[in-house]
Amino acid sequence: MAIITLTTDLGMTDWFVGSMKGVILGMNPEVSIVDITHDVPAGDIRAGAFALLASCRCFPRQTVHLAVVDPGVGSDRAAIVVKTADYFFVGPDNGVLSLALTQEKIIEIHRVDNDVYFRQPVSNTFHGRDIFAPVAARLTQRILVDSLGKILTDFVRLDWPPPEVVDGASRGQVIYIDHFGNAITNLGEAAVREITETGGTPVLVLGGRQVGELKRFYQEAAKGQPLVLIGSSGFLEIAVNGGNAAQALNLKIGSVVKVRSRAG
Amino acid sequence: MAIITLTTDLGMTDWFVGSMKGVILGMNPEVSIVDITHDVPAGDIRAGAFALLASCRCFPRQTVHLAVVDPGVGSDRAAIVVKTADYFFVGPDNGVLSLALTQEKIIEIHRVDNDVYFRQPVSNTFHGRDIFAPVAARLTQRILVDSLGKILTDFVRLDWPPPEVVDGASRGQVIYIDHFGNAITNLGEAAVREITETGGTPVLVLGGRQVGELKRFYQEAAKGQPLVLIGSSGFLEIAVNGGNAAQALNLKIGSVVKVRSRAG
Amino acid sequence: MAIITLTTDLGMTDWFVGSMKGVILGMNPEVSIVDITHDVPAGDIRAGAFALLASCRCFPRQTVHLAVVDPGVGSDRAAIVVKTADYFFVGPDNGVLSLALTQEKIIEIHRVDNDVYFRQPVSNTFHGRDIFAPVAARLTQRILVDSLGKILTDFVRLDWPPPEVVDGASRGQVIYIDHFGNAITNLGEAAVREITETGGTPVLVLGGRQVGELKRFYQEAAKGQPLVLIGSSGFLEIAVNGGNAAQALNLKIGSVVKVRSRAG
Repeated sequence: MAIITLTTDLGMTDWFVGSMKGVILGMNPEVSIVDITHDVPAGDIRAGAFALLASCRCFPRQTVHLAVVDPGVGSDRAAIVVKTADYFFVGPDNGVLSLALTQEKIIEIHRVDNDVYFRQPVSNTFHGRDIFAPVAARLTQRILVDSLGKILTDFVRLDWPPPEVVDGASRGQVIYIDHFGNAITNLGEAAVREITETGGTPVLVLGGRQVGELKRFYQEAAKGQPLVLIGSSGFLEIAVNGGNAAQALNLKIGSVVKVRSRAG
Repeated sequence: MAIITLTTDLGMTDWFVGSMKGVILGMNPEVSIVDITHDVPAGDIRAGAFALLASCRCFPRQTVHLAVVDPGVGSDRAAIVVKTADYFFVGPDNGVLSLALTQEKIIEIHRVDNDVYFRQPVSNTFHGRDIFAPVAARLTQRILVDSLGKILTDFVRLDWPPPEVVDGASRGQVIYIDHFGNAITNLGEAAVREITETGGTPVLVLGGRQVGELKRFYQEAAKGQPLVLIGSSGFLEIAVNGGNAAQALNLKIGSVVKVRSRAG
Repeated sequence: MAIITLTTDLGMTDWFVGSMKGVILGMNPEVSIVDITHDVPAGDIRAGAFALLASCRCFPRQTVHLAVVDPGVGSDRAAIVVKTADYFFVGPDNGVLSLALTQEKIIEIHRVDNDVYFRQPVSNTFHGRDIFAPVAARLTQRILVDSLGKILTDFVRLDWPPPEVVDGASRGQVIYIDHFGNAITNLGEAAVREITETGGTPVLVLGGRQVGELKRFYQEAAKGQPLVLIGSSGFLEIAVNGGNAAQALNLKIGSVVKVRSRAG
């Protein structure tokens, strides 16, 4: 049984996602379609890219990952399929696939322009339904990727802010705020491992103030207290036990975050 | 593998939709159930009818389309099944199926009153779970439609505001506002085709002011600028490139919209 | 075809639920996964428990019901599987399963601590993905429950406020407010049956004032008028025909509700 995942900014309020699923099932009724999320903020390519990065490796090999955050729909931005050692990734070539692809072994990149695979007539504003859904369905039926369109040598990549080390502290930023208000940063485990391996205690510093310590899980902090932990996506995450960290600590996408060894 | 689509105002916050799916899978575990939307505003029959109209033909033949927007649940409004050349439509006879049915070749209309197919006891407030879900599941098992209840000659139809031509302009209204703030109108392609075929440029007029031109896709307008295009449902749609048209232009359901050839 | 239901507070805005589904389908691609709801308020064990209570018996035998409302994730709260005559229930041992279990015949209770069934490495903050999803998937493959961990004699139970009879009136409280604003109470059918069987008319009393009567369905009350009815979950429910009862009557979780025979 083949799997197609969907990551979009189409919302579930209208009929858009349902239409895509109808097109997929009309071509391959045996597919399991899994929603990653449809609540990516409208046109927010980076948020969609992060959701795909954080989830795609939970799926079995041969899964087709389709991402439709596509503010340039209808323009001359390309549609692409990237075949990796484990998966297929399908979407507009605007960066939405690029964070997930940093984890994969890339085999081939193809432009999607063979309209024999499209649903006709192709709407200029809904390639999710008319181009991406049918192409994803065909990929579960083992069509040759070569038949989709010409081979490309690269795809559009999003900048990913690199963590820095400044005065002995790891300095990063908030890159995603989840449904619970947890603020996920671009700092990886390495930022705290260096401290713990030398017997130190990592502390979280916001706006020059030390506001919490590294904990293993939420309830290890006192109720209502901030903490930092290694989140389920592998990145350091700022949380408040039983609360909403983004609200309590006034964190936004891009807020600067430091982690250093506790002084004294 | 049979398909049942669901279009409801039940929301996903509670357990209502999950209960319906449990009933369906208990009767036919091989069904693929596809959510069109559950976020129809409570009791808004017209919005539910439009979502079904806009999506139902994306599904393969034999799909069972179930719509539950049912403010009259428990009263003497009828439950109906409409068999068309391609699909089955199931729901309360309050108009929620009627817009989609304008596109279909109707074969038979049946009242649903044979309670041997119902889940017992039937709640007076949740026919979605106790009547519609089991009937939809049975339809995927090829029960005879005749066995559901007596034949009807018609069903309740929603009024659909007809576009008018006034002083050389096509005059219509906003009939749906989507998740992105795009305002879908009751004007079809014909309203602009007549203009373009004679070499004119269609322009969008709101409140007497010309606010945008016909474009093929969103980014063909300048960032933040209004436009009108032929939307993915086949209706003219008012959008703002990278923005929310309903907010920016103060559009509501029923707002008057005109399209005419550019003057001068 | 096996069924796993999901009841969580993870929301659908992020990738969390999608990740759980990927893990399940990677272990058993033939499972139908049904969302009960993912919109349980963050950490609200009681609301999650009620959603599961209200829906779980709509599913066929052998369904695996997984509930992840888990503010204590990573702490020493246990993970459990409860095998009943009809179902498996899986989740943290914090009460979230306990309301549903009041309806079931319990066969065995097991602690889940055999990490051979877990996804490795186990995140300290997302047991939904790394422990509960794989264990639920294995249960659909008929692993022996004994292999999951040691047998337990009981599980954590939520208090359930008992209805009282005071001065001839049944006195209860609001325990859940649904998407439509209907306020579900802890009063069962018995509270009104005693009145109707003796020829009385049950009336709803809020704050000492009689605000509505027992009706069979919403439209039996006048438009905009309050009523009380036997809801689809079997509990008395306060509604306003065509309106939002919680807003109109200022009802909250815990609001006191009385039902008595109409005076005079």
